[in-house]
Amino acid sequence: MAAFRMGPKTLPVLMSLFQKNRQKVCAALKEHKSVKDKSYVLLAGGDDVSFNDTDVSYLFRQESYFQYMFGVKEPGCYGVLNVDAGQSTLFVPRLPEEYSTWMGKLYTLDEFKKMYEVDAVRYVDELNTFFESAQPSVILTLSGPNTDSRLVSTPARFDGIEKFVVDCTLLHPVIAECRVIKSSEEIEVLRYVAKVSSDAHIRVMQFMRPGRTEYEGEAVFLHHSYAVGGCRHASYTCICGSGVNSAVLHYGHAGAPNDGPVRDGDMCLFDMGANYCGYAADITCSFPANGKFTEDQKFIYNTVLAGRNAVLQEAREGVSWVDMHKLACRVMLTKLKEGGMLKGDVEDMLAAGLAGIFQPHGLGHLLGLDVHDVGGYLTGQPDRPTEPWLSKLRFARTLKAGMYVTVEPGCYFIEYLMDRALADPNLNKFIVKEVYERFRKFGGVRIEDDVLIKKDGCENFAIVPRTVEEIEKTMATRVE
Amino acid sequence: MAAFRMGPKTLPVLMSLFQKNRQKVCAALKEHKSVKDKSYVLLAGGDDVSFNDTDVSYLFRQESYFQYMFGVKEPGCYGVLNVDAGQSTLFVPRLPEEYSTWMGKLYTLDEFKKMYEVDAVRYVDELNTFFESAQPSVILTLSGPNTDSRLVSTPARFDGIEKFVVDCTLLHPVIAECRVIKSSEEIEVLRYVAKVSSDAHIRVMQFMRPGRTEYEGEAVFLHHSYAVGGCRHASYTCICGSGVNSAVLHYGHAGAPNDGPVRDGDMCLFDMGANYCGYAADITCSFPANGKFTEDQKFIYNTVLAGRNAVLQEAREGVSWVDMHKLACRVMLTKLKEGGMLKGDVEDMLAAGLAGIFQPHGLGHLLGLDVHDVGGYLTGQPDRPTEPWLSKLRFARTLKAGMYVTVEPGCYFIEYLMDRALADPNLNKFIVKEVYERFRKFGGVRIEDDVLIKKDGCENFAIVPRTVEEIEKTMATRVE
Repeated sequence: MAAFRMGPKTLPVLMSLFQKNRQKVCAALKEHKSVKDKSYVLLAGGDDVSFNDTDVSYLFRQESYFQYMFGVKEPGCYGVLNVDAGQSTLFVPRLPEEYSTWMGKLYTLDEFKKMYEVDAVRYVDELNTFFESAQPSVILTLSGPNTDSRLVSTPARFDGIEKFVVDCTLLHPVIAECRVIKSSEEIEVLRYVAKVSSDAHIRVMQFMRPGRTEYEGEAVFLHHSYAVGGCRHASYTCICGSGVNSAVLHYGHAGAPNDGPVRDGDMCLFDMGANYCGYAADITCSFPANGKFTEDQKFIYNTVLAGRNAVLQEAREGVSWVDMHKLACRVMLTKLKEGGMLKGDVEDMLAAGLAGIFQPHGLGHLLGLDVHDVGGYLTGQPDRPTEPWLSKLRFARTLKAGMYVTVEPGCYFIEYLMDRALADPNLNKFIVKEVYERFRKFGGVRIEDDVLIKKDGCENFAIVPRTVEEIEKTMATRVE
Repeated sequence: MAAFRMGPKTLPVLMSLFQKNRQKVCAALKEHKSVKDKSYVLLAGGDDVSFNDTDVSYLFRQESYFQYMFGVKEPGCYGVLNVDAGQSTLFVPRLPEEYSTWMGKLYTLDEFKKMYEVDAVRYVDELNTFFESAQPSVILTLSGPNTDSRLVSTPARFDGIEKFVVDCTLLHPVIAECRVIKSSEEIEVLRYVAKVSSDAHIRVMQFMRPGRTEYEGEAVFLHHSYAVGGCRHASYTCICGSGVNSAVLHYGHAGAPNDGPVRDGDMCLFDMGANYCGYAADITCSFPANGKFTEDQKFIYNTVLAGRNAVLQEAREGVSWVDMHKLACRVMLTKLKEGGMLKGDVEDMLAAGLAGIFQPHGLGHLLGLDVHDVGGYLTGQPDRPTEPWLSKLRFARTLKAGMYVTVEPGCYFIEYLMDRALADPNLNKFIVKEVYERFRKFGGVRIEDDVLIKKDGCENFAIVPRTVEEIEKTMATRVE
């Protein structure tokens, strides 16, 4: 059985995973009222992306829809699915023999067929003759907006496609919806990459300490993920914030490249996830740099942990994700009130939107081949909420078994938002100013787990220390 | 003094480096016969590049010409140079306050001015009013071909630029030529990143052994480069070939991702270079997986080493790079003859192009901000040679002090080239077939150093074990 694998220590991902994905898409298309007989799907794989005008490219990673359907490592491929017959044909670039000097063994079509367990393999330059002979009633290509970035996928094309009937809108919501519910095979890969990432996080916690620089944690994470887990890619840029930087939601970008000093008394917020065979993990650990929580750190940490625990208790099929967001916010505001930072009625605070000052992001998002996975706001699903403290949610659906989501409540002290809240009579009436001000340079805490939704509950794939006691015990063991 | 730095363990790169680069470009433009008074240079910095239609981007790295002139970490910037006055203005994106939730502190114009030591900072949306007030005779933008990739850089533009006289061809060869000769400040950065990369290579050699998988070496290299050297980027995709894979010049790409098993008796060829503040290293070490050379491995290794030593002995200002390539080939063919693999006259072998069968690439290339650095085939410099065994050279210039080049002779056993040579009566007459055939599954050896050209010689910045004895001694120390 053919598989993707990075050597003997790592998980074999059987190509049957992708075969099942194709069957699922075929079945969904056959059920679709607008899909006629003799429909064919045509997908374009990703291409190498040059670094500006140089002759270096970014390290190639397969386009996610193509990865979902074909699991192919190489750039420049196309894939076709005969919907009626459920048969797949992979189209690979035809390379001159000279390329083997630079690229190594050039596989034959038959070798590609065995490697990817598709029904047939042809060359990309044969797409036109393939379709001339297949006589499709329609070619379904992929075009539709990503609801997080608003970018639109580019539909596949080939010289001669203008002779055929092409529909570029029907496929996108169908395949996106297929990706939302994970198969048992996909779940095994997601469990693996979450475990690799969890172990890497633990190592980082044992390695970080005052005097180090933030990026050293990123280096440890990436190394463990790759060396032990075979994960050549991270799913997103590592966020390694300490002190006030831990309140910057996308810290770690090029302008703030995890280059801050880690100081005694700082909280660290490290949000990092590996990627294996295209599948993503997305885990955040928050911990004190010196390994021991102060009382203030415990207060904020346990506030977030209570929100997280409440969600993990309640999340299951049939529950609205918006309600889970509200639950986390309600629990956290209650804890902040109990700790003396807030006063008044928690329901009134929620109605006033105070939660969005502490957590200016959604509770979590779908997770899969993309870290912010597709399927959030498909037609027929609930729209994005309009209230400011709910509008950052990346989906608003009712949970279904097989969905895979992050649960990532957070509590941050972001100075311009603090100042806004303090200046707003609708918000400042809930705030005990002297307590709130004590946290101005605190930074933030986020606890982010990767959670599989089931019929009667959920399963957390992030296996990392979560209570104050577990974290302090883990960090008592130090590694270099 | 403002500097780029990744924490206290790493090299501070003073912003005066980029200031001097700007002055050099200004001086070169002033000497240029076609440059009039009131000329202004306008460069666009790099932008974030999305991973397909997702909301994840590739980790940003600054466009190389912009890095050369401004050393700016952030995407989306522009830079202007008043050629007459030698004054620089940096244009940064105007970001709404809300961005600080995600990006962190939004710097003021004055903070940017201090950070990058430019003469002035404005917002990108002020480019038009800036030029309306400056009244340039011409705006010089950047457009020209990369002689390795043939890609053309995209000239900067802004809304309103059509009102001005724009020249997009004059600047490119001038700035490319400026980049060819490294300043003393640049040399210090190049020396640093070569040392970090050298140390990482040594660690990899001590870590690799039969039973490991190739990518584990890549993981060790990247980790050392980042954790110890602060190098967040590699300069190119790591090439970690063992056994037959070591004969694949660009092994390690997505279709062959360093996933082969390392076996007892294999040679390893690891070509990896870190990147610091934009500046590149590019070093190859070849070594036996088990730490002890066989006689056959010694034969090929010492063949390549002799070619390398001859070049390091001769390279200096005034020498032709093509002659250096020929020298390496002549020495290597002589060694192969002495070892019994070849027969006949070495000059006849060279004339027949036999060297290109063993080393189907050039002796080396310019190195700097790009791994294959610019300036190779500028107008007025020698053209690319047409003979097949010389045509792969990435430049053919006479060496000048301050040039920085790789010296990377290699000897590979690439099966389809072996078969071509054996079938070609012009080549097979030189080959002792039974000896040659013994090496069919050998793979290859490359020795790649990073070398600064001086008036009276050269200096090698790659500080790694090079002789058989040095390598065996280094590998006798094993690290986990």
